[in-house]
Amino acid sequence: MELSEVQALMARTYGDRDTARGVPASIAWLCEEVGEFARAARKGSRDQQVEELGDVLAWLASIANQLGVTLEEGMARYVAGCPRCGRSPCGCPAA
Amino acid sequence: MELSEVQALMARTYGDRDTARGVPASIAWLCEEVGEFARAARKGSRDQQVEELGDVLAWLASIANQLGVTLEEGMARYVAGCPRCGRSPCGCPAA
Repeated sequence: MELSEVQALMARTYGDRDTARGVPASIAWLCEEVGEFARAARKGSRDQQVEELGDVLAWLASIANQLGVTLEEGMARYVAGCPRCGRSPCGCPAA
Repeated sequence: MELSEVQALMARTYGDRDTARGVPASIAWLCEEVGEFARAARKGSRDQQVEELGDVLAWLASIANQLGVTLEEGMARYVAGCPRCGRSPCGCPAA
């Protein structure tokens, strides 16, 4: 699936609800889903990890729709290598 | 960009570093980036919102790589409509 299709899918399924809810409440939902993903990553089954990963991406796409920005634009910085050092593989000092 | 290409890009650029860091530390980075995205969504410029959105997606893809799951699988639940009510647009009771 294309990144643009992820956003189009979320707009079709949740666009009206997203607009009614607004960005701050959507950020709260995103954080809740990130917590569920963190738990699944630590001790969940593979199915649970897939489900929570999808939920985080879904909320991220919904918020992008509300902000009028795209996941595609967000990834553009990474296409030519690490945004900090410009290399691929990244050669930044270990953080 | 395809979801699979997002993960392939992260694997090429950060795969070795991700493996060395491990999932728990990567989750910590994801949370930090979610916080930066939340701030950008509230009061950042459009460019800052795009940048932080990309960073969240990048970390999400890196963790998916480490877990051996895919963003594509995660989105599959949404393709046929809302995973809870099965409809598109979603017809779930307001949360």
